[in-house]
Amino acid sequence: MNAIAAVKRALRAVEEREPEVRAWAWLDADRAQAEAVAVERRGGGPLGGVVVGVKDIFDTWDQPTECGTPIFAGRRPRADAATVSLLRAAGAVCLGKTVTAELASSHPGPTTNPHRATHTPGGSSMGSAAAVACGMADIALGTQTAGSIIRPASFCGVFGFKPTFGTVSPAGVKLFAPSLDTVGWFARTPELLDAVRVCLTGRAPAAPLTGPPRIGVLRTEQWRACAPESAQAVVEMADRARTADAQVSEVTQPDFLDGLAGDLTVMAYESARTLAWEHRTHRDLLSPALRDFLDMGVTTDPGVYDRVLARRDAARAREAELFGACDVLLTPAVVGEAPLGLADTGDPQFARLWTLLGLPTVAIPAITGPTGLPVGVQLLARTGQDAALLAAACWLTSDPAH
Amino acid sequence: MNAIAAVKRALRAVEEREPEVRAWAWLDADRAQAEAVAVERRGGGPLGGVVVGVKDIFDTWDQPTECGTPIFAGRRPRADAATVSLLRAAGAVCLGKTVTAELASSHPGPTTNPHRATHTPGGSSMGSAAAVACGMADIALGTQTAGSIIRPASFCGVFGFKPTFGTVSPAGVKLFAPSLDTVGWFARTPELLDAVRVCLTGRAPAAPLTGPPRIGVLRTEQWRACAPESAQAVVEMADRARTADAQVSEVTQPDFLDGLAGDLTVMAYESARTLAWEHRTHRDLLSPALRDFLDMGVTTDPGVYDRVLARRDAARAREAELFGACDVLLTPAVVGEAPLGLADTGDPQFARLWTLLGLPTVAIPAITGPTGLPVGVQLLARTGQDAALLAAACWLTSDPAH
Repeated sequence: MNAIAAVKRALRAVEEREPEVRAWAWLDADRAQAEAVAVERRGGGPLGGVVVGVKDIFDTWDQPTECGTPIFAGRRPRADAATVSLLRAAGAVCLGKTVTAELASSHPGPTTNPHRATHTPGGSSMGSAAAVACGMADIALGTQTAGSIIRPASFCGVFGFKPTFGTVSPAGVKLFAPSLDTVGWFARTPELLDAVRVCLTGRAPAAPLTGPPRIGVLRTEQWRACAPESAQAVVEMADRARTADAQVSEVTQPDFLDGLAGDLTVMAYESARTLAWEHRTHRDLLSPALRDFLDMGVTTDPGVYDRVLARRDAARAREAELFGACDVLLTPAVVGEAPLGLADTGDPQFARLWTLLGLPTVAIPAITGPTGLPVGVQLLARTGQDAALLAAACWLTSDPAH
Repeated sequence: MNAIAAVKRALRAVEEREPEVRAWAWLDADRAQAEAVAVERRGGGPLGGVVVGVKDIFDTWDQPTECGTPIFAGRRPRADAATVSLLRAAGAVCLGKTVTAELASSHPGPTTNPHRATHTPGGSSMGSAAAVACGMADIALGTQTAGSIIRPASFCGVFGFKPTFGTVSPAGVKLFAPSLDTVGWFARTPELLDAVRVCLTGRAPAAPLTGPPRIGVLRTEQWRACAPESAQAVVEMADRARTADAQVSEVTQPDFLDGLAGDLTVMAYESARTLAWEHRTHRDLLSPALRDFLDMGVTTDPGVYDRVLARRDAARAREAELFGACDVLLTPAVVGEAPLGLADTGDPQFARLWTLLGLPTVAIPAITGPTGLPVGVQLLARTGQDAALLAAACWLTSDPAH
């Protein structure tokens, strides 16, 4: 589709859904249409006809970037974030800025779940996941510091991808905890997730798998925290894979990962320093939850922080033991369906460990839960195996009749 | 000294030296004096009475941040960089913004070497090193992506410290190559370097050594590139240490580091993506050298990039073999004295490898070279041994009569 028609279609979806979903922090239809015309004039590009939503912690030179906080009301950066510029260079049109939780943390913005407006869409990349879910954007940029890609993707029923840590430039993105902050993105197909990866990294597209992948089902130490629907999503996805001739085995979480999924030390220590200016000079404009968290980070013992990072490094070195003979691991993405209410963005406990380890991970829509909301699963691969991970996601979600 | 007196003293140095040295990109004496008054009103702090110069790629809410390029002329950020905010919270006064090479790369700004104005002060943190050298600031923030702390420190005759990669937040700093970019700083004493480290990390001060350190003299594979004065600086510093009863041994650079010091792959691949916006939309405002470098980065093979990072990871895992029984390694900081002319900021080849590995390193003023310019040496420690490194620097440069 050409860029002008794609923007028109997205704007129709905005007209229809935005009054309820409230995914956009800023959107100027005229500006977006003019950008589409410019893209067509220069002949499109690898992402020509793709409409992008940009989480409002990514700088944009032509649109405000307010980071979900009154501290940055009306802020106008001078440059695009690196990823925004690369997407635009590939012909994608930036429709607007999507709602983020406060400073990409947990205090939510106004976005509702596109599947039922009384439920949270998840956070912190809430507007991005919601916009993609209801066709207001084809792809959307987000970030994950705990579970801010995987959780909203699962709650909104879209694909969400967090690449290997360090492989996509964070330039122009508001940081929270630099050892954890990872740029990621959402789409309605894993093929489009991969096209974005190619654009942002200059790497080759994922080659289709030549045979079924070896999948390990990892129940993790938090398995008992799963609501029945999240456990069922994993089991059903494993069954589908078995039916399509994949080797599926059970994998036990190695002891060396015990307790790391719930550890907040790295986030607390780093955010208190990274957000020092906001914490010190705009204390009264922070949500009480974030203020308390930063207060805690100021007093976090650097020795404890060092020990957690040492455990992370040791775990990374033992990645082979985690994966064994498996190509990918299948594990819960979330506790269950999106919880009722908009005050809380949900629990990131099934994502946090993989953010700390820096592994590539993708959320895949799997089933409809007991109340009719979507539930995703999470697929993990080894460090650097981003293309293989997305190829496995394509394989798992393709029509088995093919 | 109180902040008001400290700023007055710094401003006198500015009046005397700045017309020739040209270290400042922006300086408003009235604003600085008002900041000093405010600091005194709230009772100083751990860095009360310390005057700071801030490399002009660090955001400041109350001063322009132009990154050494016309692309960002007049740019006014909304927030302080994390490190600027932490220094101010500790009572330091930010006197102004120091000249940086274009986007913290190699195309120089107007700063001259404070020891002889016809020579470069080194780059890219040129204004920071020069300002500290002539008393216009007590400390100054900089960054190192290749040799941008160690080289200007050596050329200007001051101490320069690059901490372990990832230990100081890069929030609010213009990135160039995120796997390499490291915040560092300059001072006229190693004790003050350490006080800044304590402020930025919340860690304990370096404890004085209880006995002489074990020092390895590492001649590196680039040793033959040393001018006589840089070799002599290493030899003289080793002799001084021996005289003061340190165990000094010769260390051979392990084979697994061969060729890494000269490798530009990581910098090229990452900068082309990190500076995508500047490269794409302001091509004509880039220096030809930076434009060519970014052009090269666009076509850098990601497979080659991955192999260099894999070699880096393997080398990090073998750090123990590099250090052996030594606490610190003594090695050249630079090829020699600052070269004649202002068009070139000098060769970073003795710093680049340690930036890639992420090791903490400190430049220490050592000797006066054949034409009368300062020559430093470089001291390295293991990952995370930043306090021990600065303690060794204090020991090495303290009066042996003590």
